[in-house]
Amino acid sequence: MRLVHPGLLLIVSGPSGCGKGTVCDLLRKRNPNLAYSISATTRRARPGERDGIDYLFLTPDDFQHQVEQDGFLEWARVFGHFYGTPRAWVEECLETGKDVLLEIDPQGALQVKAGYPAGILLFLLPPSLSELENRINRRGTESAEEKAQRLKAAEREIAQIRYYDYLVVNDKVEQAVLTIEAILQAERSRVDRYSKQKLKAMLEG
Amino acid sequence: MRLVHPGLLLIVSGPSGCGKGTVCDLLRKRNPNLAYSISATTRRARPGERDGIDYLFLTPDDFQHQVEQDGFLEWARVFGHFYGTPRAWVEECLETGKDVLLEIDPQGALQVKAGYPAGILLFLLPPSLSELENRINRRGTESAEEKAQRLKAAEREIAQIRYYDYLVVNDKVEQAVLTIEAILQAERSRVDRYSKQKLKAMLEG
Repeated sequence: MRLVHPGLLLIVSGPSGCGKGTVCDLLRKRNPNLAYSISATTRRARPGERDGIDYLFLTPDDFQHQVEQDGFLEWARVFGHFYGTPRAWVEECLETGKDVLLEIDPQGALQVKAGYPAGILLFLLPPSLSELENRINRRGTESAEEKAQRLKAAEREIAQIRYYDYLVVNDKVEQAVLTIEAILQAERSRVDRYSKQKLKAMLEG
Repeated sequence: MRLVHPGLLLIVSGPSGCGKGTVCDLLRKRNPNLAYSISATTRRARPGERDGIDYLFLTPDDFQHQVEQDGFLEWARVFGHFYGTPRAWVEECLETGKDVLLEIDPQGALQVKAGYPAGILLFLLPPSLSELENRINRRGTESAEEKAQRLKAAEREIAQIRYYDYLVVNDKVEQAVLTIEAILQAERSRVDRYSKQKLKAMLEG
Protein backbone atom coordinates (compact mmCIF):
# COMPACT_ATOMS: atom_id res chain seq x y z
CA MET A 1 0.00 0.00 0.00
CA ARG A 2 1.35 3.42 -0.96
CA LEU A 3 -0.13 6.60 0.45
CA VAL A 4 0.23 9.94 -1.21
CA HIS A 5 1.00 12.42 1.52
CA PRO A 6 1.74 15.98 0.56
CA GLY A 7 5.54 16.15 0.41
CA LEU A 8 7.56 16.87 3.53
CA LEU A 9 9.30 20.23 3.77
CA LEU A 10 12.62 19.71 5.54
CA ILE A 11 14.29 22.93 6.64
CA VAL A 12 17.93 22.40 7.61
CA SER A 13 19.38 25.37 9.40
CA GLY A 14 22.05 26.30 11.91
CA PRO A 15 24.75 28.91 12.43
CA SER A 16 27.59 29.63 10.05
CA GLY A 17 30.22 26.95 10.50
CA CYS A 18 27.79 24.24 11.63
CA GLY A 19 28.45 22.38 8.39
CA LYS A 20 24.97 22.51 6.88
CA GLY A 21 26.35 22.68 3.34
CA THR A 22 28.34 19.47 3.72
CA VAL A 23 25.51 17.65 5.47
CA CYS A 24 22.93 18.70 2.86
CA ASP A 25 25.26 17.67 0.02
CA LEU A 26 25.57 14.12 1.38
CA LEU A 27 21.85 13.98 2.20
CA ARG A 28 21.02 14.90 -1.41
CA LYS A 29 23.51 12.42 -2.82
CA ARG A 30 21.97 9.57 -0.80
CA ASN A 31 18.39 10.73 -1.49
CA PRO A 32 18.18 11.82 -5.13
CA ASN A 33 14.36 12.12 -4.89
CA LEU A 34 14.67 14.90 -2.33
CA ALA A 35 13.96 18.10 -4.28
CA TYR A 36 16.46 20.79 -3.43
CA SER A 37 15.39 24.40 -3.50
CA ILE A 38 18.00 26.81 -4.82
CA SER A 39 18.17 30.11 -2.97
CA ALA A 40 18.25 33.46 -4.65
CA THR A 41 20.88 35.91 -3.40
CA THR A 42 22.33 39.33 -4.12
CA ARG A 43 25.78 38.41 -2.81
CA ARG A 44 28.59 37.76 -5.25
CA ALA A 45 29.46 34.20 -6.20
CA ARG A 46 32.35 32.63 -4.27
CA PRO A 47 34.96 30.83 -6.37
CA GLY A 48 33.40 27.71 -7.92
CA GLU A 49 29.78 28.69 -7.31
CA ARG A 50 27.54 28.49 -10.39
CA ASP A 51 24.48 30.62 -11.14
CA GLY A 52 21.27 28.56 -11.25
CA ILE A 53 22.94 25.56 -9.62
CA ASP A 54 24.41 26.71 -6.31
CA TYR A 55 22.43 29.93 -6.12
CA LEU A 56 20.27 32.16 -8.25
CA PHE A 57 22.46 35.27 -8.33
CA LEU A 58 20.17 38.30 -8.61
CA THR A 59 20.80 42.03 -8.77
CA PRO A 60 19.39 44.01 -5.84
CA ASP A 61 16.73 45.46 -8.18
CA ASP A 62 15.55 42.05 -9.41
CA PHE A 63 15.48 40.77 -5.85
CA GLN A 64 13.37 43.73 -4.72
CA HIS A 65 10.92 43.12 -7.56
CA GLN A 66 10.46 39.49 -6.47
CA VAL A 67 9.87 40.61 -2.88
CA GLU A 68 7.10 42.95 -4.06
CA GLN A 69 5.45 40.08 -5.99
CA ASP A 70 5.46 37.92 -2.81
CA GLY A 71 7.70 35.60 -4.75
CA PHE A 72 9.73 34.37 -1.75
CA LEU A 73 8.77 31.86 0.93
CA GLU A 74 11.23 33.77 3.10
CA TRP A 75 13.85 36.38 2.51
CA ALA A 76 16.38 38.08 4.69
CA ARG A 77 19.28 40.42 4.77
CA VAL A 78 22.32 38.63 6.17
CA PHE A 79 25.66 40.40 6.54
CA GLY A 80 24.61 43.04 4.04
CA HIS A 81 23.31 40.66 1.36
CA PHE A 82 19.80 39.50 0.50
CA TYR A 83 18.80 35.83 0.38
CA GLY A 84 15.42 34.35 -0.51
CA THR A 85 13.64 31.08 -1.25
CA PRO A 86 11.54 31.14 -4.44
CA ARG A 87 7.98 30.26 -3.39
CA ALA A 88 6.25 28.79 -6.46
CA TRP A 89 8.68 25.97 -7.09
CA VAL A 90 8.60 24.73 -3.47
CA GLU A 91 4.81 24.80 -3.24
CA GLU A 92 4.43 22.90 -6.48
CA CYS A 93 6.76 20.14 -5.31
CA LEU A 94 4.95 19.70 -2.00
CA GLU A 95 1.51 19.58 -3.62
CA THR A 96 2.61 16.81 -5.97
CA GLY A 97 3.91 14.74 -3.05
CA LYS A 98 7.62 15.50 -3.44
CA ASP A 99 9.75 16.07 -0.36
CA VAL A 100 11.71 19.33 -0.46
CA LEU A 101 14.96 20.22 1.26
CA LEU A 102 15.69 23.83 2.19
CA GLU A 103 19.12 24.74 3.50
CA ILE A 104 18.79 28.21 4.98
CA ASP A 105 20.06 30.49 7.72
CA PRO A 106 18.13 30.58 11.01
CA GLN A 107 16.46 33.92 10.29
CA GLY A 108 14.88 32.53 7.11
CA ALA A 109 14.21 29.11 8.60
CA LEU A 110 11.96 30.52 11.31
CA GLN A 111 10.05 32.58 8.70
CA VAL A 112 9.37 29.47 6.62
CA LYS A 113 8.18 27.50 9.66
CA ALA A 114 5.89 30.37 10.68
CA GLY A 115 4.25 30.32 7.25
CA TYR A 116 4.23 26.52 6.90
CA PRO A 117 3.92 24.89 10.34
CA ALA A 118 3.99 21.38 8.84
CA GLY A 119 7.61 22.06 7.85
CA ILE A 120 10.23 20.06 9.75
CA LEU A 121 12.60 22.57 11.32
CA LEU A 122 16.02 21.13 12.04
CA PHE A 123 18.90 22.86 13.80
CA LEU A 124 22.34 21.56 12.99
CA LEU A 125 24.75 22.15 15.82
CA PRO A 126 28.55 21.97 15.78
CA PRO A 127 30.00 19.67 18.45
CA SER A 128 30.94 22.71 20.59
CA LEU A 129 31.19 26.51 20.48
CA SER A 130 34.98 26.37 20.29
CA GLU A 131 34.74 24.02 17.29
CA LEU A 132 32.29 26.46 15.70
CA GLU A 133 34.82 29.27 16.16
CA ASN A 134 37.55 27.14 14.59
CA ARG A 135 35.37 26.38 11.59
CA ILE A 136 34.46 30.03 11.04
CA ASN A 137 38.11 31.06 11.34
CA ARG A 138 39.28 28.43 8.86
CA ARG A 139 37.03 29.92 6.19
CA GLY A 140 39.34 32.06 4.07
CA THR A 141 36.89 34.27 2.22
CA GLU A 142 35.88 36.71 4.94
CA SER A 143 37.35 39.61 6.87
CA ALA A 144 38.05 39.43 10.60
CA GLU A 145 35.06 41.70 11.17
CA GLU A 146 32.74 39.43 9.19
CA LYS A 147 34.00 36.43 11.14
CA ALA A 148 33.36 38.16 14.47
CA GLN A 149 29.86 39.08 13.28
CA ARG A 150 29.19 35.47 12.30
CA LEU A 151 30.27 34.16 15.69
CA LYS A 152 28.05 36.65 17.48
CA ALA A 153 25.12 35.75 15.23
CA ALA A 154 25.75 32.05 15.92
CA GLU A 155 25.40 32.63 19.66
CA ARG A 156 22.11 34.49 19.15
CA GLU A 157 20.84 31.72 16.86
CA ILE A 158 21.75 28.95 19.29
CA ALA A 159 19.74 30.78 21.96
CA GLN A 160 16.67 30.24 19.75
CA ILE A 161 16.96 26.45 19.51
CA ARG A 162 13.68 25.98 21.41
CA TYR A 163 11.75 27.13 18.31
CA TYR A 164 13.05 24.17 16.31
CA ASP A 165 11.63 20.66 16.04
CA TYR A 166 14.88 18.71 15.94
CA LEU A 167 18.44 19.21 17.04
CA VAL A 168 21.16 17.24 15.28
CA VAL A 169 24.77 17.46 16.39
CA ASN A 170 27.11 17.53 13.40
CA ASP A 171 30.01 15.68 14.93
CA LYS A 172 30.38 13.20 12.07
CA VAL A 173 28.72 14.11 8.77
CA GLU A 174 27.64 10.53 7.97
CA GLN A 175 25.99 10.10 11.38
CA ALA A 176 24.19 13.44 11.08
CA VAL A 177 22.82 12.40 7.67
CA LEU A 178 21.60 9.02 8.99
CA THR A 179 19.81 10.83 11.82
CA ILE A 180 18.14 13.22 9.36
CA GLU A 181 17.03 10.26 7.24
CA ALA A 182 15.49 8.65 10.33
CA ILE A 183 13.69 11.92 11.08
CA LEU A 184 12.20 11.98 7.58
CA GLN A 185 11.05 8.38 7.91
CA ALA A 186 9.52 9.02 11.33
CA GLU A 187 7.76 12.18 10.17
CA ARG A 188 6.06 10.23 7.37
CA SER A 189 4.46 8.06 10.08
CA ARG A 190 3.14 10.92 12.22
CA VAL A 191 -0.60 10.63 12.76
CA ASP A 192 -1.12 14.36 12.19
CA ARG A 193 0.13 13.92 8.61
CA TYR A 194 -2.81 11.61 7.76
CA SER A 195 -6.15 13.04 6.72
CA LYS A 196 -9.40 11.27 7.65
CA GLN A 197 -9.93 10.42 3.98
CA LYS A 198 -6.54 8.77 3.69
CA LEU A 199 -7.07 6.69 6.80
CA LYS A 200 -10.43 5.54 5.53
CA ALA A 201 -9.01 4.63 2.13
CA MET A 202 -6.16 2.71 3.80
CA LEU A 203 -8.46 0.61 5.93
CA GLU A 204 -10.80 -0.22 3.12
CA GLY A 205 -7.93 -0.79 0.70
CA MET B 1 29.64 13.46 22.91
CA ARG B 2 26.98 11.41 24.70
CA LEU B 3 23.97 13.02 26.31
CA VAL B 4 21.99 11.38 29.05
CA HIS B 5 18.34 11.94 28.25
CA PRO B 6 15.73 10.35 30.45
CA GLY B 7 14.82 7.14 28.66
CA LEU B 8 12.16 7.11 25.97
CA LEU B 9 8.88 5.41 26.78
CA LEU B 10 7.64 3.70 23.61
CA ILE B 11 4.03 2.54 23.79
CA VAL B 12 3.14 0.14 20.99
CA SER B 13 -0.57 -0.42 20.68
CA GLY B 14 -3.24 -1.33 18.19
CA PRO B 15 -6.26 -3.58 17.89
CA SER B 16 -6.29 -7.34 18.37
CA GLY B 17 -4.89 -8.93 15.23
CA CYS B 18 -2.68 -5.97 14.25
CA GLY B 19 0.39 -8.08 15.01
CA LYS B 20 1.85 -6.07 17.88
CA GLY B 21 3.21 -9.18 19.57
CA THR B 22 5.22 -10.24 16.52
CA VAL B 23 6.45 -6.71 15.83
CA CYS B 24 7.52 -6.15 19.45
CA ASP B 25 9.30 -9.53 19.55
CA LEU B 26 11.46 -8.61 16.54
CA LEU B 27 12.01 -5.07 17.85
CA ARG B 28 13.30 -6.48 21.14
CA LYS B 29 15.51 -9.03 19.41
CA ARG B 30 17.16 -6.29 17.33
CA ASN B 31 17.38 -3.86 20.27
CA PRO B 32 18.41 -5.83 23.35
CA ASN B 33 18.89 -2.59 25.33
CA LEU B 34 15.21 -1.75 25.04
CA ALA B 35 13.73 -2.63 28.44
CA TYR B 36 10.49 -4.56 28.08
CA SER B 37 7.80 -4.16 30.66
CA ILE B 38 5.90 -7.33 31.51
CA SER B 39 2.17 -6.84 32.03
CA ALA B 40 0.25 -8.25 34.93
CA THR B 41 -3.01 -10.02 34.10
CA THR B 42 -5.77 -12.03 35.72
CA ARG B 43 -6.48 -14.06 32.58
CA ARG B 44 -5.33 -17.65 32.37
CA ALA B 45 -2.10 -18.46 30.59
CA ARG B 46 -2.43 -19.58 26.98
CA PRO B 47 -0.47 -22.69 26.01
CA GLY B 48 3.26 -21.88 26.07
CA GLU B 49 2.97 -18.65 28.10
CA ARG B 50 5.25 -18.49 31.13
CA ASP B 51 4.56 -16.64 34.39
CA GLY B 52 7.04 -13.80 35.01
CA ILE B 53 8.30 -13.91 31.42
CA ASP B 54 5.30 -13.44 29.12
CA TYR B 55 2.98 -12.08 31.81
CA LEU B 56 2.75 -11.75 35.54
CA PHE B 57 -0.28 -13.96 36.15
CA LEU B 58 -2.12 -12.61 39.22
CA THR B 59 -5.27 -13.66 41.03
CA PRO B 60 -8.09 -11.12 40.92
CA ASP B 61 -7.47 -10.39 44.63
CA ASP B 62 -3.76 -9.71 44.17
CA PHE B 63 -4.53 -7.51 41.18
CA GLN B 64 -7.07 -5.50 43.16
CA HIS B 65 -4.55 -4.99 45.96
CA GLN B 66 -2.01 -3.56 43.47
CA VAL B 67 -4.66 -1.22 42.07
CA GLU B 68 -5.35 0.11 45.55
CA GLN B 69 -1.62 0.74 46.11
CA ASP B 70 -1.46 2.76 42.84
CA GLY B 71 0.95 0.13 41.63
CA PHE B 72 -0.05 0.27 37.95
CA LEU B 73 0.84 2.85 35.32
CA GLU B 74 -2.40 1.79 33.68
CA TRP B 75 -4.84 -1.00 34.16
CA ALA B 76 -7.95 -2.09 32.37
CA ARG B 77 -10.59 -4.74 32.10
CA VAL B 78 -10.52 -6.24 28.62
CA PHE B 79 -12.95 -8.99 27.64
CA GLY B 80 -13.58 -9.84 31.27
CA HIS B 81 -9.93 -9.98 32.37
CA PHE B 82 -7.73 -7.41 34.11
CA TYR B 83 -4.42 -6.21 32.66
CA GLY B 84 -1.97 -3.74 34.19
CA THR B 85 1.51 -2.28 33.78
CA PRO B 86 3.59 -2.31 36.99
CA ARG B 87 4.58 1.30 37.66
CA ALA B 88 7.77 1.22 39.77
CA TRP B 89 9.89 -0.79 37.36
CA VAL B 90 9.05 1.43 34.35
CA GLU B 91 9.73 4.67 36.21
CA GLU B 92 13.06 3.42 37.49
CA CYS B 93 14.20 2.48 33.96
CA LEU B 94 13.27 5.86 32.51
CA GLU B 95 14.99 7.81 35.29
CA THR B 96 18.23 5.95 34.72
CA GLY B 97 18.13 6.72 31.00
CA LYS B 98 16.87 3.36 29.75
CA ASP B 99 14.32 3.25 26.94
CA VAL B 100 11.25 1.18 27.78
CA LEU B 101 8.89 -0.66 25.46
CA LEU B 102 5.27 -1.18 26.47
CA GLU B 103 3.06 -3.39 24.34
CA ILE B 104 -0.50 -2.72 25.46
CA ASP B 105 -4.07 -2.54 24.27
CA PRO B 106 -5.42 0.88 23.17
CA GLN B 107 -7.42 1.46 26.34
CA GLY B 108 -4.27 1.15 28.47
CA ALA B 109 -2.06 2.94 25.96
CA LEU B 110 -4.13 6.14 26.15
CA GLN B 111 -4.05 6.01 29.97
CA VAL B 112 -0.25 5.81 29.98
CA LYS B 113 0.08 8.69 27.52
CA ALA B 114 -2.30 10.80 29.63
CA GLY B 115 -0.11 10.26 32.69
CA TYR B 116 3.20 10.55 30.84
CA PRO B 117 2.84 12.90 27.84
CA ALA B 118 6.49 12.43 26.85
CA GLY B 119 5.64 8.83 25.98
CA ILE B 120 5.70 7.96 22.28
CA LEU B 121 2.29 6.57 21.42
CA LEU B 122 2.34 4.33 18.38
CA PHE B 123 -0.65 2.73 16.68
CA LEU B 124 0.06 -0.41 14.72
CA LEU B 125 -2.43 -0.89 11.94
CA PRO B 126 -3.11 -4.04 9.92
CA PRO B 127 -2.92 -3.50 6.14
CA SER B 128 -6.75 -3.45 5.94
CA LEU B 129 -9.87 -4.15 7.97
CA SER B 130 -10.53 -7.39 6.06
CA GLU B 131 -7.00 -8.57 6.85
CA LEU B 132 -7.63 -7.71 10.50
CA GLU B 133 -10.75 -9.87 10.45
CA ASN B 134 -8.80 -12.74 8.90
CA ARG B 135 -6.14 -12.52 11.57
CA ILE B 136 -8.66 -12.49 14.41
CA ASN B 137 -10.49 -15.48 12.88
CA ARG B 138 -7.29 -17.48 12.49
CA ARG B 139 -6.66 -17.28 16.22
CA GLY B 140 -7.83 -20.61 17.60
CA THR B 141 -8.15 -19.90 21.29
CA GLU B 142 -11.35 -17.85 21.36
CA SER B 143 -15.08 -18.35 20.93
CA ALA B 144 -17.03 -16.85 18.03
CA GLU B 145 -18.52 -14.34 20.45
CA GLU B 146 -15.10 -13.23 21.69
CA LYS B 147 -13.92 -12.83 18.10
CA ALA B 148 -16.91 -10.68 17.21
CA GLN B 149 -16.25 -8.54 20.31
CA ARG B 150 -12.63 -8.11 19.30
CA LEU B 151 -13.53 -6.96 15.80
CA LYS B 152 -16.03 -4.43 17.15
CA ALA B 153 -13.45 -3.17 19.65
CA ALA B 154 -10.90 -2.86 16.83
CA GLU B 155 -13.22 -0.57 14.89
CA ARG B 156 -13.73 1.65 17.95
CA GLU B 157 -9.99 1.75 18.57
CA ILE B 158 -9.15 2.68 14.99
CA ALA B 159 -11.59 5.59 15.29
CA GLN B 160 -9.31 6.97 18.04
CA ILE B 161 -6.14 7.05 15.97
CA ARG B 162 -5.98 10.85 16.16
CA TYR B 163 -4.89 10.61 19.82
CA TYR B 164 -1.72 8.77 18.82
CA ASP B 165 1.65 10.20 17.79
CA TYR B 166 2.57 7.70 15.09
CA LEU B 167 0.79 5.32 12.80
CA VAL B 168 2.71 2.35 11.45
CA VAL B 169 1.13 -0.06 8.97
CA ASN B 170 2.08 -3.65 9.76
CA ASP B 171 2.18 -4.96 6.24
CA LYS B 172 5.61 -6.57 6.55
CA VAL B 173 6.93 -7.12 10.07
CA GLU B 174 10.56 -6.23 9.18
CA GLN B 175 9.52 -2.95 7.56
CA ALA B 176 7.33 -2.02 10.53
CA VAL B 177 10.26 -2.65 12.89
CA LEU B 178 12.63 -0.51 10.80
CA THR B 179 10.10 2.32 10.88
CA ILE B 180 9.77 2.04 14.66
CA GLU B 181 13.57 2.15 14.99
CA ALA B 182 13.64 5.32 12.88
CA ILE B 183 10.96 6.83 15.12
CA LEU B 184 13.06 6.11 18.22
CA GLN B 185 16.13 7.68 16.61
CA ALA B 186 14.17 10.75 15.52
CA GLU B 187 12.56 11.20 18.94
CA ARG B 188 16.00 11.26 20.56
CA SER B 189 16.75 14.35 18.43
CA ARG B 190 13.60 16.28 19.30
CA VAL B 191 14.40 19.70 20.73
CA ASP B 192 11.74 19.36 23.44
CA ARG B 193 13.66 16.40 24.88
CA TYR B 194 16.68 18.60 25.69
CA SER B 195 16.80 20.61 28.90
CA LYS B 196 18.51 24.02 28.98
CA GLN B 197 21.24 22.56 31.18
CA LYS B 198 21.98 19.79 28.70
CA LEU B 199 22.20 22.20 25.79
CA LYS B 200 24.58 24.42 27.71
CA ALA B 201 26.76 21.48 28.70
CA MET B 202 26.83 20.29 25.08
CA LEU B 203 27.97 23.61 23.71
CA GLU B 204 30.65 24.09 26.30
CA GLY B 205 31.75 20.44 26.07
